[in-house]
Amino acid sequence: MKTIGVDLGGTNMKAALVDETGQVLQEISAPTNLPRPAEAVCDDIAALCLALSQDQQVAGIGVGCPGTVDGGVVRYSNNLAWHDFDMAGYLRQKLDLPVYLGNDANVAALGEALAGCAKGAESAVIITLGTGVGGGVVLDGKLLTGYTGAAAEPGHMVILGTSEAPLCTCGRRGCFESLASATALIRMTREARRTHPDSALNTLAPEENDVNGRTAFDAAAMGDTAGKAVVEQYTTYLAMGIANLINIFFPEVVGLSGGVANQGENLLQPLRAAVEPLVFGNEFAKKKTRITTCTLGYRAGVIGAAMLAQRGEA
Amino acid sequence: MKTIGVDLGGTNMKAALVDETGQVLQEISAPTNLPRPAEAVCDDIAALCLALSQDQQVAGIGVGCPGTVDGGVVRYSNNLAWHDFDMAGYLRQKLDLPVYLGNDANVAALGEALAGCAKGAESAVIITLGTGVGGGVVLDGKLLTGYTGAAAEPGHMVILGTSEAPLCTCGRRGCFESLASATALIRMTREARRTHPDSALNTLAPEENDVNGRTAFDAAAMGDTAGKAVVEQYTTYLAMGIANLINIFFPEVVGLSGGVANQGENLLQPLRAAVEPLVFGNEFAKKKTRITTCTLGYRAGVIGAAMLAQRGEA
Repeated sequence: MKTIGVDLGGTNMKAALVDETGQVLQEISAPTNLPRPAEAVCDDIAALCLALSQDQQVAGIGVGCPGTVDGGVVRYSNNLAWHDFDMAGYLRQKLDLPVYLGNDANVAALGEALAGCAKGAESAVIITLGTGVGGGVVLDGKLLTGYTGAAAEPGHMVILGTSEAPLCTCGRRGCFESLASATALIRMTREARRTHPDSALNTLAPEENDVNGRTAFDAAAMGDTAGKAVVEQYTTYLAMGIANLINIFFPEVVGLSGGVANQGENLLQPLRAAVEPLVFGNEFAKKKTRITTCTLGYRAGVIGAAMLAQRGEA
Repeated sequence: MKTIGVDLGGTNMKAALVDETGQVLQEISAPTNLPRPAEAVCDDIAALCLALSQDQQVAGIGVGCPGTVDGGVVRYSNNLAWHDFDMAGYLRQKLDLPVYLGNDANVAALGEALAGCAKGAESAVIITLGTGVGGGVVLDGKLLTGYTGAAAEPGHMVILGTSEAPLCTCGRRGCFESLASATALIRMTREARRTHPDSALNTLAPEENDVNGRTAFDAAAMGDTAGKAVVEQYTTYLAMGIANLINIFFPEVVGLSGGVANQGENLLQPLRAAVEPLVFGNEFAKKKTRITTCTLGYRAGVIGAAMLAQRGEA
């Protein structure tokens, strides 16, 4: 069975024809061209789907969309500036195919869970370490979306509930996102660069704006003390949030994606060591959660969206 | 369909014959009489089940057991001092009926979700505020237990990740349990009692050992400033943990049980007000998580265990 997965972003929309194993058979993309009406954006999505479905038997369309999605309706998307738009209904009418809608981060998590780093696992928590901390939870092949239609938001779990903790974009202090996103890593690196003017952080990033999510890792690899301290502090917070999620879900796999995850084993090895003692009952557990990096890259979104349509889940 | 639910505790074992709606038809109990071998304890459980099943059509037995449960096996129970004991296998042989096993806190949560405070809801997070913070998560009528066989442990989610945060029984600092259990409330009350010798806390509890989980609430009700401050601090931590769990699960219901929950609306009203602004996307949510108290009391365990057997879930 082939389905089409659509990954709608603020800049581009991507679509792919995907088989039942999660293999991408064909892909296509177009600019989102915001701002413009939701219907105009959907007309372009429909055109991409029509292009992909020519001479093909397509069973359905899945769409990953930024924002809060409830059934087939986009309740609210800050990126797209949509409110209560019946996206699935609109596309269904255009395409005469079943349409399934999900939050983009959730849908990408579904892709990783079913066809990527957690393929074959009974449960997975996927965490994206980018500008924010997003993610999704997949239990027995099914996305956890909740009653309110909001996606699982592991980034907005407070792990440092003090009045001095960094302010999160959501308005709370000490959220996992405010301590473990790439943005948080860059903030910590900048602070260390200022307070340690002789460190390699300053050689690698002569100007504050040169600091990126790799700077501290690169400095640490050179043996730089300040760089190592930043990586250690970041890893401590990341481990704290991941251990919390393990203690809540005890998933088979935790998969990390996003820029910071590109560090691979540089990140994973100390992270696993930091998480292990924080897992409740780890002394007696016969099975352990596997912590790894995601494998589908930018295609997680379209593959996950296509899988959503294959599962026939809203 | 009738099933038998067993709630095995360190002091007593309770069993009940329960119908498909969760109604208790008959109940019976006996002392657990520890320490003694697992088989001897199970022989007594079997005797209770036989007494309840006389002249009855019983479809199966469910058991809630303290500790880490994996399938039908008790991996490790600190309370019972059991290791890798095939409890379901043993009871099945004795009773010639299907036997389903679950962690006691999880099973009680299932009872509340299916027949108590969250009856009819699509999902529920049940949190017990007692000596520790236990609980369970029920999604679409099914217990979340995870890959490792460990129960969901929301109490061991760090919400105050600082080196000065209170030490938790699990060895970490700043766990939800160490800040929102009845034990934590008593600790905070004792501290306030010492630092505010003129407060009503001292009238209500002339000796430190007189402090219990009600002292601060009683003082606050009398208008006592120190008592109010304790209740406010406790409520802040409780709200922080509950908001985290809402942002992760977005459940239809959060149900609170345990001694502190007996405060009812005294606790719930300020708690709801504190949780609301911490919920991600609350400005746009059409549906809100209902925060309430549990309704089954001490029977949640046997009812949940019986429901486990009715659902035929391990």
